[in-house]
Amino acid sequence: MSLTAFFRPCSIALVGATERAGSVGRSIWDNLRAFDSPVWPVNAKRAEVGGVRAFPDLASLPAVPDLVVIVTPAATVPKIVEEAGRIGTRAAVVISAGFKETGEAGAELEARVLEAARRHGVRLIGPNCLGLMNPHAGLNATFATSMARPGRVAFLSQSGALCTAILDWSHDQNVGFSAFVSTGAMADVGWGDLIRHFGQDARTESIVMYMESPGADAVDFLAAAREVAARKPIVVIKVGRTAEASRAAASHTGAMTGSDAVLDAALRQNGVLRVDTIEELFDMAEVLAKQPLPAGPRLAIVTNAGGPGALATDALVLGGGSVAELSQTTLDALSVVLPAHWSHHNPVDVLGDADASRFASALRITAQDDAVDGVLAVLTPQAMTQPTEIARAVAAIAHPSGKPLLASWMGAQSVQEGRALLNAAAVPTYDYPDEAAKSFVRMHEHRTRLDWLRETENALCDTAAASVELPCEGGLLSEAAAKRVLAVAGIPVVETREAHDEEAAVAAARDLGFPVVLKLLSPTITHKSDCGGVVLDLNDETAVRAAWQGIRERATAKHGTAAFAGVTVQRMIREKGVELILGASQDAQFGPVLLFGAGGTLVEVMQDRTLALPPLNQALARRWMRETRVFKLLQGTRGGRPVDFAALEDVLVRFSRLVHAEPRLLEVDINPLLATPAGVLALDARMVLSRA
Amino acid sequence: MSLTAFFRPCSIALVGATERAGSVGRSIWDNLRAFDSPVWPVNAKRAEVGGVRAFPDLASLPAVPDLVVIVTPAATVPKIVEEAGRIGTRAAVVISAGFKETGEAGAELEARVLEAARRHGVRLIGPNCLGLMNPHAGLNATFATSMARPGRVAFLSQSGALCTAILDWSHDQNVGFSAFVSTGAMADVGWGDLIRHFGQDARTESIVMYMESPGADAVDFLAAAREVAARKPIVVIKVGRTAEASRAAASHTGAMTGSDAVLDAALRQNGVLRVDTIEELFDMAEVLAKQPLPAGPRLAIVTNAGGPGALATDALVLGGGSVAELSQTTLDALSVVLPAHWSHHNPVDVLGDADASRFASALRITAQDDAVDGVLAVLTPQAMTQPTEIARAVAAIAHPSGKPLLASWMGAQSVQEGRALLNAAAVPTYDYPDEAAKSFVRMHEHRTRLDWLRETENALCDTAAASVELPCEGGLLSEAAAKRVLAVAGIPVVETREAHDEEAAVAAARDLGFPVVLKLLSPTITHKSDCGGVVLDLNDETAVRAAWQGIRERATAKHGTAAFAGVTVQRMIREKGVELILGASQDAQFGPVLLFGAGGTLVEVMQDRTLALPPLNQALARRWMRETRVFKLLQGTRGGRPVDFAALEDVLVRFSRLVHAEPRLLEVDINPLLATPAGVLALDARMVLSRA
Repeated sequence: MSLTAFFRPCSIALVGATERAGSVGRSIWDNLRAFDSPVWPVNAKRAEVGGVRAFPDLASLPAVPDLVVIVTPAATVPKIVEEAGRIGTRAAVVISAGFKETGEAGAELEARVLEAARRHGVRLIGPNCLGLMNPHAGLNATFATSMARPGRVAFLSQSGALCTAILDWSHDQNVGFSAFVSTGAMADVGWGDLIRHFGQDARTESIVMYMESPGADAVDFLAAAREVAARKPIVVIKVGRTAEASRAAASHTGAMTGSDAVLDAALRQNGVLRVDTIEELFDMAEVLAKQPLPAGPRLAIVTNAGGPGALATDALVLGGGSVAELSQTTLDALSVVLPAHWSHHNPVDVLGDADASRFASALRITAQDDAVDGVLAVLTPQAMTQPTEIARAVAAIAHPSGKPLLASWMGAQSVQEGRALLNAAAVPTYDYPDEAAKSFVRMHEHRTRLDWLRETENALCDTAAASVELPCEGGLLSEAAAKRVLAVAGIPVVETREAHDEEAAVAAARDLGFPVVLKLLSPTITHKSDCGGVVLDLNDETAVRAAWQGIRERATAKHGTAAFAGVTVQRMIREKGVELILGASQDAQFGPVLLFGAGGTLVEVMQDRTLALPPLNQALARRWMRETRVFKLLQGTRGGRPVDFAALEDVLVRFSRLVHAEPRLLEVDINPLLATPAGVLALDARMVLSRA
Repeated sequence: MSLTAFFRPCSIALVGATERAGSVGRSIWDNLRAFDSPVWPVNAKRAEVGGVRAFPDLASLPAVPDLVVIVTPAATVPKIVEEAGRIGTRAAVVISAGFKETGEAGAELEARVLEAARRHGVRLIGPNCLGLMNPHAGLNATFATSMARPGRVAFLSQSGALCTAILDWSHDQNVGFSAFVSTGAMADVGWGDLIRHFGQDARTESIVMYMESPGADAVDFLAAAREVAARKPIVVIKVGRTAEASRAAASHTGAMTGSDAVLDAALRQNGVLRVDTIEELFDMAEVLAKQPLPAGPRLAIVTNAGGPGALATDALVLGGGSVAELSQTTLDALSVVLPAHWSHHNPVDVLGDADASRFASALRITAQDDAVDGVLAVLTPQAMTQPTEIARAVAAIAHPSGKPLLASWMGAQSVQEGRALLNAAAVPTYDYPDEAAKSFVRMHEHRTRLDWLRETENALCDTAAASVELPCEGGLLSEAAAKRVLAVAGIPVVETREAHDEEAAVAAARDLGFPVVLKLLSPTITHKSDCGGVVLDLNDETAVRAAWQGIRERATAKHGTAAFAGVTVQRMIREKGVELILGASQDAQFGPVLLFGAGGTLVEVMQDRTLALPPLNQALARRWMRETRVFKLLQGTRGGRPVDFAALEDVLVRFSRLVHAEPRLLEVDINPLLATPAGVLALDARMVLSRA
């Protein structure tokens, strides 16, 4: 259902309007009066509010309001929402607090509000929020002390307190908004609804979010992001990167925050840019709306001094960007317009005495190089520098060769006019060149996320998974059973036999061919190697018998006889390769999540892992693997051959589709997954199912 | 020699003073005229400059100037310096460019200038610099367009262009300076001299440096830093973290920049704080001068809103700090002064309706907790918030319990007065709470560096190394010879025999006891395992013979007969342990450098290494190891026992002293160095010597 009534209502009722100074009801009433369509105060105890006739309840209003804003105590809210629904209102903002965030009784009250809303088809923003604004419509349904400037950014915040600080700051910085929404507890209207609404809103160029949790419907949030992100940048600051911060946020909103790493993977795959600071949040909203995206990570820097160029280069490379390598043609062309002592490489130092024409020529020539994905112009006000003239010349270039252009006019007073000229020409300016370089890196990061987004959409169109029959009972599968499931899904596994007595173990070993490996088969112990449950490299029958005995003794000595159900026997794989881990688990908010990284025994120490949401296709699998350090090892080191990437990607894709199709797979670990130049093989597997 | 004449001269001569508008000589002349001691223009072509009688040369001056400032063309400078020396001046600032940075002829000219200066005991700042200022003395010997404000920060910059931008910005931000020095090419006066000077200067509270290279005498720079850093903070921004940036800086100053990782280690060990951005540079100069250092990394956050608290927490933990865990006593005390709904943990959310008294009480109680090393006060201007009153109450607390206090009053207009109050009380304020948290992390980083510094001084006092006799000839030692050197230095090595024929190999194996390892002995091949030159786990004579054959065949097939000189034989170590690398090499600027990290075959992929300068003591060795990821593995994983840290620290200390004492050790690699709960053992070693 459309959210238009929230942002462009033709009439509004404020339930809880009052004249009491310092009250929330008074603040909102004062703010709403500037709105030029009818606004009706509802207050059973007063005949009028601020000189306007008040109504005892919603039913008494002269017409049905498009939007109801509620500031009365929590206990009264269910009845008011009920009444609003009954008279035909379809949008309500609940400012009132005292719900889920206060404990069980509050949560129950919130459930009743929601129930009433659902029954009557009323959409709710809140509860426990600051309200919302549409500066273009002159609508301020908040208790903030000022109105946002009109502009092109839709700002959505899960923290009301932050809204007031941002608002204050935005006046100082001349930042304007198409909407300003305090989402509160998001009992009903969530991120997905808001993103879709502003995705359609003609006045919104970018969507900027302060997030504490992805909300009740995280999957819908991602779906909405996929629909909108390619057209309008969605930039998020999400607190709770660390467990500590997550606790701080959770206690505040009463919402449970899931693992941040999962959210991070989800944002990356669905085209949402994540930033770390409020400054970056609004910087990116501006930059992405003003400038084209770079095709790659290679930045050229044109500067009138070496030091600032070096500062920018450091920040660029540390951030993950790269310094564009200029062609000989470009260098030759630059040498024509620059004095002999110019730097002769990128950063292009046009020297301290550069005038506007020299600076602009160098910028134009540099930008034309095919190896350049974006340009940063840096100026320091030196003795002979004319900051304003150079800014004018640079502003005239704006998007050189369709590539992004950023600028840093360093200093203060003497560069103010130049900065204003550049900003007016949609060239973002930065106080320091390192900030500009970091901003370029984020632009490229956004570009990359849009690539991920496209592939995610492709992967969702083709999710054909092998049909796998899972055992009906839940719980931990045996290693052999887990491998059978993987094999049916098309993942190569090393053949594995279960043996419940010593003779069966010997027979299996003979059948598979020596050397073999024996591993503990236990209904209770999952980390087999920790208790001596794995014996490698058994070359004959005697060795197999000894290993059987040893495993049995060690398992029963420590964990009792019930811990020992026999062994599994498999060929010893002597091939050298890279040990990987491929796994899956269920996230409470996002559902199945995949994990890939360095495997084997070092897995916990090296912490080299990356997450993704299934399904994957080949392109996504390839991108995904690059997120790890072990990827370098897969490419082959010291002249070694690379592993069979086609086979590895295939395994990742098949595994992802299996996990996507089978919600009963609670936990899967393939560790090690051995990757060699000849192929890929699952050596061990662990699988936990929910009941059928 | 003292640099006082540069910063407090009683008279100045400006050689190259002129009236020509727009010229450097004119700009400096105009700036110098505000100085209230005699300033004499020297210009052979003019009888007067700007209405002041000019002198044809230094010898004609009415008295000997304390300071000579030179702006004449490069070619004339040697003669002028010579003349200055001859008349008795002991300080010269060479503004003129056209020296080393222009190529060979310029470098020769620079050498002549330096030679003249040295001969007469003249100290030089420059050449190719902007000049210097002492705002407290009204001295502006630069061609910048304005004078710095007086203050407590000594700013030293290797980039003149950056000086002008910083100057402009400092006026805007009200930052003041005790001195403002453009160092230029640092032909004579370098970082060490300047740090020592400002270390003694009563008006200087902190030393802030923009560095492109550590200069000609990097070792003296470190010595000066050690002398001063514990008394006055030294904060550095050094460009060239990346190879690309280093190139940008090198081409500019004509100086070669060494490996950034070495410098990074050197700064850490000698008490110099390194930051990444100009903003951080001045922030830290201010904070370290105003606030006590935290005893540890644990920050408590007192805030009137949850969202900003979460932002700060994220930045804190990501930066390497930690969230203070409040004691039950503190929580109980807070519950007395706070409403029931407060957060009940750190961040301490005093809620949106907090007044000044509630906020201040919470802050005082929180700061008293022994688990709290510093406090951050965060305020967002909400409906009932009184930003100024709360600021006044917080400012009155200033250093609660002797711990650092930072503040973030978020917003703009409505918090301006509060910010000013806090700043006046020496409580640094930040626009955003995440910036404040990062600043706290840097304060703790500085604290840690001072601990490193103290240990570095201790280590330098006790460098007793075993006396080792090195072979006279230079070049690559055999593995056995390298191990002998290590053994004499007291480092446990696995016994290793050289065998030049098959029978000797068998005899050695029998003597050492099976199983053994055979490794190629080659005068030319250094990476033995790459060409099949290492065969492990040989259990009997037959296996040794086969391995001998195999190694010989593989080595000669690929690299010719000269590559094979036999094998080394050593016991096969089957003990499980952690494979480390311990190495050393010679840095062009800093001399010997140590390397420690994860060893074995994964060394190149995992890139888990850290550098340090010798000598180390036990305390430094311990700190140093913590810089790696492999440290976790050394502590024991999954309930495993930790390695023998005492033995490992001993090896590190002995190795560092060996390297410190023997400059002939060009390269040493102990890889793997096996660490186990029972001890430490060097399994392989590689050593390259310079000639005796």
